[in-house]
Amino acid sequence: MQRSEVSAPADSETLRPAAIRHAQRHLARHLAALSEFCAIPSISADPNRREDVAQAAAWLAAQLESIGVRQSRVIPTPGHPIVYGELAASRPGQPTVLVYGHYDVQPDGPLEPWESKPFIPANRGEFLFARGAADMKGPLYATIAAVEAMLQQGSVPVNIKFIFEGEEETGSPNLGPFLEAHKTMLAADVCLNLDAGLLDYEAPTITYGLRGIVAMEIRVHGPRQDVHSGIFGGVVHNPAEVLARLIAALRDGGGGIAIPGFYDGVRLPDETERAELARLPITEASILEQTGVPALWGEPGFSPVERAGGRPTLEVNGLVSGCAGDSFATIIPASALARISFRLVPDQDPELVSSQLTRYLETLLPSTVRLEVKLLAGSPAILGERTSPATRALDRALAAAWEKPPYYQRGGGGIPIVSQMQSILGISSVLSGLAGPGDSCHGPNERLHLPTFERGIEAVIHFLHNFAQS
Amino acid sequence: MQRSEVSAPADSETLRPAAIRHAQRHLARHLAALSEFCAIPSISADPNRREDVAQAAAWLAAQLESIGVRQSRVIPTPGHPIVYGELAASRPGQPTVLVYGHYDVQPDGPLEPWESKPFIPANRGEFLFARGAADMKGPLYATIAAVEAMLQQGSVPVNIKFIFEGEEETGSPNLGPFLEAHKTMLAADVCLNLDAGLLDYEAPTITYGLRGIVAMEIRVHGPRQDVHSGIFGGVVHNPAEVLARLIAALRDGGGGIAIPGFYDGVRLPDETERAELARLPITEASILEQTGVPALWGEPGFSPVERAGGRPTLEVNGLVSGCAGDSFATIIPASALARISFRLVPDQDPELVSSQLTRYLETLLPSTVRLEVKLLAGSPAILGERTSPATRALDRALAAAWEKPPYYQRGGGGIPIVSQMQSILGISSVLSGLAGPGDSCHGPNERLHLPTFERGIEAVIHFLHNFAQS
Repeated sequence: MQRSEVSAPADSETLRPAAIRHAQRHLARHLAALSEFCAIPSISADPNRREDVAQAAAWLAAQLESIGVRQSRVIPTPGHPIVYGELAASRPGQPTVLVYGHYDVQPDGPLEPWESKPFIPANRGEFLFARGAADMKGPLYATIAAVEAMLQQGSVPVNIKFIFEGEEETGSPNLGPFLEAHKTMLAADVCLNLDAGLLDYEAPTITYGLRGIVAMEIRVHGPRQDVHSGIFGGVVHNPAEVLARLIAALRDGGGGIAIPGFYDGVRLPDETERAELARLPITEASILEQTGVPALWGEPGFSPVERAGGRPTLEVNGLVSGCAGDSFATIIPASALARISFRLVPDQDPELVSSQLTRYLETLLPSTVRLEVKLLAGSPAILGERTSPATRALDRALAAAWEKPPYYQRGGGGIPIVSQMQSILGISSVLSGLAGPGDSCHGPNERLHLPTFERGIEAVIHFLHNFAQS
Repeated sequence: MQRSEVSAPADSETLRPAAIRHAQRHLARHLAALSEFCAIPSISADPNRREDVAQAAAWLAAQLESIGVRQSRVIPTPGHPIVYGELAASRPGQPTVLVYGHYDVQPDGPLEPWESKPFIPANRGEFLFARGAADMKGPLYATIAAVEAMLQQGSVPVNIKFIFEGEEETGSPNLGPFLEAHKTMLAADVCLNLDAGLLDYEAPTITYGLRGIVAMEIRVHGPRQDVHSGIFGGVVHNPAEVLARLIAALRDGGGGIAIPGFYDGVRLPDETERAELARLPITEASILEQTGVPALWGEPGFSPVERAGGRPTLEVNGLVSGCAGDSFATIIPASALARISFRLVPDQDPELVSSQLTRYLETLLPSTVRLEVKLLAGSPAILGERTSPATRALDRALAAAWEKPPYYQRGGGGIPIVSQMQSILGISSVLSGLAGPGDSCHGPNERLHLPTFERGIEAVIHFLHNFAQS
């Protein structure tokens, strides 16, 4: 599908503000619908929540249907389904925007830190608290609300295709094959993706780079079952201790990663980009405030912004071994598990990093235990165009909704879909978002900032009009 | 109470074999009663099992009552209750044996490795499989069965006091105050304790030394809640990684413990004792077979037997941080917890070890995280008399039941009660047991070897007669 070069219809400048007014007048209804959406515990990682994930997909398809997307449907995959819908532009020859979202959410984790229940959405002050409210049911819903407002004025200015997946939080394992199988259906000029967050509620943000990811499980096996530490302590090597030593050996003395070859593929940001990144409104104090840590940490020679977006990192995401519940048992555990992940930058290769890690661990491993390493998910980093028509349309949309020019950042997280869109469909993505760093996307008390949600709806209306006119 | 110097009554040599025959004839009934006892999930560490622990205490008091211990009762403590009972010797002036046992059990842990359910006792081959069967409901029940058999012949040859606690597996927190409060009631000449196990079913064992223990929790605190590793990876220090580094730093390069001052109080076994220990029927091959590890591990310069009984050790008993369940979440965890314990030898001081560890961790801690260290339990090692009248009585009892002289070992585990009996009541303990190293005392598929159980009953009958005559 080719982009049209004809100018927008004469009424675009009246339809656009009318749609925005419509969305504003219906905000209470949208909030109610979003709360309904957030109440569905669509945790893709939890096999017991399969029905709930399916329910969220059905809810979404019905929602699309209700705003006038007649072709909306739920398409099964070997995992969780994909919700798809299409709308034709009012006039032929308009470009096509693929609107991406994911309706699955992170696990809710331990409940104690939550001030209200994760799946009983609670409106407190300017926020809606719920698992998934920020990541990304709120931003996804904003695209629906924007399109609804435009349809209420008669039509949409560009062709729109919605693709909402249910496995983003588990690494989108079935999305690639789906894209492969539906290339024609999904053909589009650009993908709009609001899963990238913003720097601050007052700092509209375009994310032009994303880190890749490699997620792995490391398991050290010791005795065939837990054994008494009084009887075997001193003769049987403790797998939890071995695991701790392996993890410690992944880091060099100065905060860097000690895996041989790890930095080989790393491309450094150039001086222009470093200067731009230095202007971002992220301060050491703001990170301390958001996280409550006593001091920041990281690789020397790079600013916090560079470390969080432009440098590769290694994180221990989970540890479990032996007596992990409330009770103490004097055992040598049979095994010890670490879940770790790397954030990658251009031009690191996920498969290479995974095999570098495995080789390194094997060289470190004592003969007294056994090692099992699993690659769970991997995707490379991407670095987008900062001057494409779609980026310019998004720039002007954010500037209009926030009344200030947007910031350009490299995102710290990875979004596998963005690289798959590019490599499989040849579609580049423009990335923004409505979740701020304090919104606890993967933690307890996740929340959506409602004034930002409202601006988001407005920005989507602007973007779709801008892209039609551009 | 003073030991009597008069000789045993003329009929001792007929009563003793009669009692043994009685016990043998009633073995099926004993096995049924023991199964009933093992079916009660008396996990002292689990607050949800409080009622079950109380039920086990009630069952035990009823059992004592049924064999003729009229004074049996359940005495409450601030934790789980203590079951107590008394029997007078047939003749005055006889010594008093305090029979110790614990009716609580270890947690059952993950259920998958269990071939039958932990609290549905299953008789397979020569074994009774159940949590607690070996540690130590079986050995405890053997003392009751022995006394029952003796009472069926008319009387017991020594005064007997039963003390059965319900908190051994959680470090006996309420036993010390109980002993303090009941010194007169508990006065005795020796304590018989069958919680120390044996080297092999064919190797009756007297444990003359026990390692002490220090159990601690180390928690590293990072961000106030779990945060997104894509956003904060590279700027927020990962508490799970810091914990791993701290654990790794506890060990020196060669398998020793790196905590400054840790070895200061350690007394080395002398050459005579090392020579005796070298004769124990424990081989590297037998340990490999029991545990399934690919190779043994430990401090250089000491044999496996010395390392497991005569040297202090450090174990990581549990680890938990971040995504510890089935699902993967790309987070920096808010905190990371390690449960660790040290096995101590004479003359290490538990409190000193605990403070040495805390100080050492504090010196290692980076300023980017916070540390919390808790001492959960501690007791010093003990080293008993190998030539006392009680040890000689036990030696002859084991030799009679097994038809071979017993081995003398230093035990790897700690039994806090043994040091408390000594320090609070001035009563020394003689230690043996019926659980072999393959009986998975703290692991899945715990089992009791029934022929050993039967020999145990016989040995207790011999011991009580021997101690009266000695």
